[in-house]
Parts: sequence; structure tokens; C-alpha cells
Amino acid sequence: MIRFLPGGISRAELARRMDLTRSAISTIVDTLVQDGLVNEAEDGPATGGRRPILLEINPRRGYVAGIDMGATHLGLVVTDFSAHVLQELEVPFDVAAGPEVCMPEVDAQLNNLLQRAGLSLRDVMAIGIGVPGPVDLDAGMVSAPPIMPGWDGFPIRSELQQRWQRPVSLGNDAELGAFGEWAYGAGRNECNLAYLKVGSGVGAGLLIDGHVYRGATGSAGEIGHITIQENGPLCSCGNHGCLEAMAGGNAIARRAREAVRLGRRTQLSTIDVERITARDVASAARMGDLVAQQIVTEAGFHLGVAVASLVNLFNPSMVVVGGGISQMGDLLLEPIRKAVRERSLRSAAQAVRINSSVLGRRSSSMGAIVQSINVILDQMVEG
Amino acid sequence: MIRFLPGGISRAELARRMDLTRSAISTIVDTLVQDGLVNEAEDGPATGGRRPILLEINPRRGYVAGIDMGATHLGLVVTDFSAHVLQELEVPFDVAAGPEVCMPEVDAQLNNLLQRAGLSLRDVMAIGIGVPGPVDLDAGMVSAPPIMPGWDGFPIRSELQQRWQRPVSLGNDAELGAFGEWAYGAGRNECNLAYLKVGSGVGAGLLIDGHVYRGATGSAGEIGHITIQENGPLCSCGNHGCLEAMAGGNAIARRAREAVRLGRRTQLSTIDVERITARDVASAARMGDLVAQQIVTEAGFHLGVAVASLVNLFNPSMVVVGGGISQMGDLLLEPIRKAVRERSLRSAAQAVRINSSVLGRRSSSMGAIVQSINVILDQMVEG
Repeated sequence: MIRFLPGGISRAELARRMDLTRSAISTIVDTLVQDGLVNEAEDGPATGGRRPILLEINPRRGYVAGIDMGATHLGLVVTDFSAHVLQELEVPFDVAAGPEVCMPEVDAQLNNLLQRAGLSLRDVMAIGIGVPGPVDLDAGMVSAPPIMPGWDGFPIRSELQQRWQRPVSLGNDAELGAFGEWAYGAGRNECNLAYLKVGSGVGAGLLIDGHVYRGATGSAGEIGHITIQENGPLCSCGNHGCLEAMAGGNAIARRAREAVRLGRRTQLSTIDVERITARDVASAARMGDLVAQQIVTEAGFHLGVAVASLVNLFNPSMVVVGGGISQMGDLLLEPIRKAVRERSLRSAAQAVRINSSVLGRRSSSMGAIVQSINVILDQMVEG
Repeated sequence: MIRFLPGGISRAELARRMDLTRSAISTIVDTLVQDGLVNEAEDGPATGGRRPILLEINPRRGYVAGIDMGATHLGLVVTDFSAHVLQELEVPFDVAAGPEVCMPEVDAQLNNLLQRAGLSLRDVMAIGIGVPGPVDLDAGMVSAPPIMPGWDGFPIRSELQQRWQRPVSLGNDAELGAFGEWAYGAGRNECNLAYLKVGSGVGAGLLIDGHVYRGATGSAGEIGHITIQENGPLCSCGNHGCLEAMAGGNAIARRAREAVRLGRRTQLSTIDVERITARDVASAARMGDLVAQQIVTEAGFHLGVAVASLVNLFNPSMVVVGGGISQMGDLLLEPIRKAVRERSLRSAAQAVRINSSVLGRRSSSMGAIVQSINVILDQMVEG
């Protein structure tokens, strides 16, 4: 797969990264330049002789859309061909309502977004969409997704492709988040990047040298279903004591409701107890609410136990923590860092930095943009 | 890195696997044929036209040695250039005695092995050695190894290279075990292979498309130090409740000693209690001793919890269980399979087979052989 880096890349560097000869690269690049997908610009740093010619994606060649289908929100972004954001949108969403309800909603919101940007579907060259479950890439559907009831085996990609008459790529939301943070966020060019998405569920995306590591059947990185506590609370996957059941958004909201019902002193008691969300807990924590802070810290502790295992097994150079809950910053990150220091092998623990995502709630939709651009480039090169 | 598969490979297939053009491959292969490292044989399956010419490593070109430095044993093997075993040797060993004691012993046993094979160091083209700790490949030493006290920062590779005047490659024992089983054992050509080494310690080697995944600093796959039980028994790494402290050979021996001291009915009570080893527990279990079997099953249960996490994160197509303890077969494997069925996400659990190693105690030393052969081929191609 061909990859252009933000900021441009020389033919020589591209040849090195793709492990191809200069002449093979030149053939590919000539095709892309002819198609107007890539520009040549003479603005690299001078290294003694003449300045190298850098290849850059031509931003004016067309537009791409990225969609992050979360459990409780739908995030959409449309960018030019260099991933510059033109317009974005986030609306509440209920993935558990199933495809019959959700697919028309995704369609309506994409049209809504494009209208706001003064664009139509015809202007869009490709669309990427991320979903919170294990993805079968070949089939373009999810396989046994715990928090997407009703979606198992539903042909998401082909249905959207038919509807939009545009190339659609489907990906796991955490994998796309890793991709987004690697290209434009906290994990720029890290060789071994793990992106932890803490939303209603908990997932991870693993990136090795800029390529998503998917495993044998595309379900690598499913950290949310690691057992943290035997006989712990029931998880959406049917097991007990999974990380997701202890530290995901749903678990955080449940702890908060329990605290309110127990009559603990917290700002959260001013909200209808049935409607308390993880986001409410996050805001209360940021306002200094001690009960909310304790709930977040406990979630961070459980996340830390699982991240320590991830660090031992995957030995990443960086772990980026993202998703809706990650906006709590160091309140959530410090217990994770502490667990890794205490529970990971020294050589792995010393090598890893643990940071918040830079793109925030936008990581997965921006990852979908990067994936879409790569799909277009690949099609041009091959076809 | 160039790779020849046992059984031969065509130029076209080699070009495809290495992602190089036919002409680039031909240049490389011509060099190897000229050096006598590779033979061409016209014996592939006929596909319509003439039979393809298969490339094979020339077995008579020279010899290679592989060494598995375990915590309590030293395994050595010498093979011809096609990895056919000429002679092997296993002796008790104490890695904790440190390099001053162990290095001369490794040297003496290699000479002993070669003498038995009627060879001398001059006949050996390269030597590979595996050690039970995280390896810094560039430096050729181990970095903060929990069960190798006194070895942190000791220049293993350069010291042996100087002593033997032969190219020496150093690797983690579990990574080499994965390599050995992938090339000649239970995991032949699996794309996503995890090899679990259960010896005195517990480690894992991860192989993606035939390449060891080492992570940012070479300590990927350190499954032995995943926390299984908070506040569990003290581990050699300084933490509590690591898998290794619950299910490694040392832990199994400790459980057996406890059972004997408690006066439980077991064959193990006929052995001096201080000298009971995991191997004794394994033999007793195979003879039908119920206490020994229960200890093994419990270890399998703990291993299963960690392997379930590994399956969720790495999504392997196969997990090969090897190392000294693995000879207990299904007594150990069944609880692992059960834990994976119950605790891994369905799509990952259904995709993975969990089998015993085929090479047994030889996995790591054979992996060291494969690595050595690759080192030689690479040197020929580059130099």
C-alpha cells in the first residue's frame, strides 16, 4: 500500500519505505501526478546540492468523508484530499437500534454534513466508516460485535456503497483511531503505536510501522474483553469481569448511579439518576467533584491493569488514550501510567509513553479519512 | 530478509514473498547459487508446462549450531545447512550462576557436541543462541532479565563471537521457539503464530508472516509478567501475582512441595521434598498421580487466563504450547483451551487452534538454527 505523509515525501524516501526500486516508484508516481492526485513541489530542506522534489497529495483533487459510528454518538468529518477539515458534525446515536434504524440515519447525517460544506456526494471521492466491533475486512461487515446487537453479518459496506455509489471502506473504530493519531495526532510516525479507545466500550488499535495489525481474523486489539476480575460484573460479551464491564463508559455511568443511590455527596445527584452518563461524570470530575473523580480514578486503575498486559505483550513505543472518556486527562492517565510502571516488565515500561489523544473525539473519523485517501491512491496505482 | 522454506521455493514465489521483482530476485539467487549456498532442482509439481525450478538450501555447504540456554538446562544441536540434525545434547544448567560460570560451560558443551558429531568450530558457519530474557538485538545482550540475575548488560554475543571467531546471533528463547515451530514444527507457515514457552519461566514469541514481532525495545511477548492475581505470590520480577509466579515451572514445583508438606497422598512424597521439580510433577501426573494432575490443571487454568488475553490482543491463528512443562499434553492444554473458549471474544476464539509443540524441548535451539541460516544468507546477499 502506498503512503504519503503529511508534509510531503521524496521519491527516494518513498522507495525506501515501500521497499521498491527508484524506477518502480517513478512509474507509480508518474501515474499519480498525471491523475492530478499528487503534486511535485521543490521545497524540501536543501542538503548540500539542489533541493529535493517533494511529493504531496493535491488537496484540490477532491473530497473525502470519514464517519465514526460510536455506540452513543455519530461523528462525521469531510476534508479535502490533504485531510484538511472543511466541516464536521457530531450527533447522538444509538447503535443498538440496529441497521434498519441506523443506516438511514448515517445517510441523512452524511448528506446534512455535505450540505453544510456546500458539497454533494458527487464531490466525494471515497468514504471511510469506523464501527465499534471486530470487522471482517473482506466481507465488509462486523463479526459477533458485543455492543452492536443486530449487526452481526449485516453487509454494512456493500449497502452503503450501493446507497452512495462511492467507494466505502469499513474499519474498526479503534484501529482507525490509531491510524488517525499516527497520521495527524499524538502518535505521529511512532513505529509501535497502541491507541486505546475508551468510549461506551473499550477497544485498542495496534499499528506496526504505520500498518494496522489486525491478526488472523481482524479482531486483534480487543483489549476490552480481557478478564480483569474473575466473577466480576457481567459484560456485554457474555463473560464476567471484562475490562469493558469495569472501566468502559457504561461501567462509569453505572458506578455513578450507584453512588447517587447510596446518597453520596456529589453534584451528580442533581441529575435524573437514570440518565447519568459517563460524560456527566467527566464534567463533574473536572469541576472538582470528589465522588466523580474517584470513579474516574478507579476506571483508570482497571484500564492500567489491562494496559500493563498490553505493554508486556505488544511492547509499544507509545500508548495514546482516546475516545469520549479520555478528555478527563491526567485524572485517567496517571493511574494507567502508575499501573504500567508497577506491573509491566522494566524494559517495556521504560520504553513507552502514555499520552492523551490529540484529535480527541475526532481520532477515528480522521483515521477513516486517511484510510479513504490510501484506498483512492491504491486504486489509481493498480487500475 | 531472504527466507527459504523447507521443501524448496520457486523464484516466482520468492519474488512474491519478498515483494521484489523477478530480476532483483534473480540477481540475489545467482549470488547464492555461485556461493554454493543454494541448489536449483527441477522437481516441483508440473503445472501444465515444464516443471518449475525449485531453489533449495544446499545441505552440504556447511554446518550450523543452535543453543537454548534455559534457566535449568542447556540444549544444543548441530545441523547441516538444511537444518537436518546431526547431533544434540542436553545438560543441566544454572543460568542464575551468572556469566562468569555459565559462559565457559556453554563453550565447553558446544565443543563437546561438535566433537561427538566429528566436527570442529571451523566447520560451523554460524551459531545461534536463545536466552530466557528480553534481548537488545543491536547490543547483543539481555536487558533487565528477571530470571537471569547477573546478566543485565553483559555482552553475550560479542563475548561468544570473540571466543568462537564465528558469527553469533542472540535471541529470546520464546521468539526462537516460535521461529523453530513455524519452520519445522506445529506452526508450519501460520501467518499469526504465538508460541508459549512454559519452562521455569513463562514467555511467548509472536510471529507475523514469518517475522518475529519484537516491539519497540525487543520485549514483546512477555506474557509471563502479566498480572493474573493482584496480591498473588511474589514473582522474580519484583511484582506480585504474575503468570510466571502462578504457572511457571518454579511455581509448579513450589505447589508440589506444599502438597507434600501438607501430607497429601502423592507419589511425590517419595522424593526429597526440597528437590521436587516441575519435571517430577509432570512424570507423576503422567503416572496417574491425582495431586500432580491437579497442580498441572491449575497451572493450565492460570495459563489459560493469560492466553485468553493474548488471543484477544494478538488474534493468532495458532498458539503452540512448548517448553519443558508442555510435555504434559492435554492435561495442560485442555484448561487453556477452555479458558480461551470462555474468556476470548468469539471471533478470535473460533479462529485459534491451541496445540502442543512438535519439536518439544528442541523448539528454541531449532529456531536458533533457522535464524543462523538466515543470517548467513543475508550476509552472502549483502556482502
